[in-house]
Amino acid sequence: MLVPRDHQYFMKQALDQAHIALERGEIPVGAVVVSNGQIIARAHNLTETLTDVTAHAEIQAITAAANFLGGKYLNNCQLYVTLEPCQMCAGALYWSQVSELIFGAYDAKRGYQTMGTQLHPKTKVIGGILEEEASQLMSDFFQSKRKK
Amino acid sequence: MLVPRDHQYFMKQALDQAHIALERGEIPVGAVVVSNGQIIARAHNLTETLTDVTAHAEIQAITAAANFLGGKYLNNCQLYVTLEPCQMCAGALYWSQVSELIFGAYDAKRGYQTMGTQLHPKTKVIGGILEEEASQLMSDFFQSKRKK
Repeated sequence: MLVPRDHQYFMKQALDQAHIALERGEIPVGAVVVSNGQIIARAHNLTETLTDVTAHAEIQAITAAANFLGGKYLNNCQLYVTLEPCQMCAGALYWSQVSELIFGAYDAKRGYQTMGTQLHPKTKVIGGILEEEASQLMSDFFQSKRKK
Repeated sequence: MLVPRDHQYFMKQALDQAHIALERGEIPVGAVVVSNGQIIARAHNLTETLTDVTAHAEIQAITAAANFLGGKYLNNCQLYVTLEPCQMCAGALYWSQVSELIFGAYDAKRGYQTMGTQLHPKTKVIGGILEEEASQLMSDFFQSKRKK
C-alpha cells in the first residue's frame, strides 16, 4: 500500500529525527526539508553534541538543504519541524525565503510567534501537525531530566 | 606605545574581518568575541562562499567562541560586530547568553531592534562604535554592486 506523502507523512519523518536527538541526550527536535515531494535534508538538534547553541534542527536542515540544492534560497521547499521555531530559527527561515513552514507542537514560551519574529512575507505557515506526539516527546524529555 | 584595548580597538578588529569579507565578494560584516580582554574568535560573513543564509559573521563567531571555550554559553564574553545583528543572529545571541553586544552601524531595516527580537535579559548592548566606518563599508559595497 502506498503511503500518501501528506503533512502527516513528512512530520512523521521529522519526528523520527527528534527520536534520534532524544537517544543522544539532546532536546528532541527534528526537521526535514522537502522539495518537489522528496526529502532533501534531515536534521535534528545537536546543541549538546556540538556544544553550540546555534545547532538547532532547523539551522542544520537549512544548511543541508541549501547544500543539496546548490543555492542559498529554499523558495520551492517546505520545512517540517516538530517544534515551533525559536527567534533564531525563524530569522534563518526569513533569510531562506522558504515557501512553507509546517511545525508540530507550539512553543508558547520561546516560539517565534510569541517572541514576535517575522518570517518572509512569502512563507506560508501551518502549525499543530502531529502536535500531540511532538509535545509528548518534549514533556517526556524534560520530565526525565528533572528526575535525574 | 601600547594601544588601549577599548571598544574602538576591538571594533577595529571586527572591521578588519569585514574587509576580508569584502575582498571575497561578501556583504562586509565582521565580528570578534572577547573573553578576559583577549580575542577568542574572529569571523566574517560567508553566506556567498558557503551558499548558506545562516553563515552570518555572528553565527560563525558564536560557534568558534564556544569551540574555544569548550562550553555553549558566552556568559563572560563580549561580541563585537560591525553591523547591528539581524533577527537570526540576535536570536542566537539570546541563546548564547553573551554578556555584552557591541555593534557598529545601525540597521534600521533588518536590525533586531526594528524587528523586535529579544536578547537575553543579562546582555548589555552598546551601538554606534566606529559607526561611520562600518556604515561606509556597507554603502560602498552596495554602491559597487549596483554599478555592476
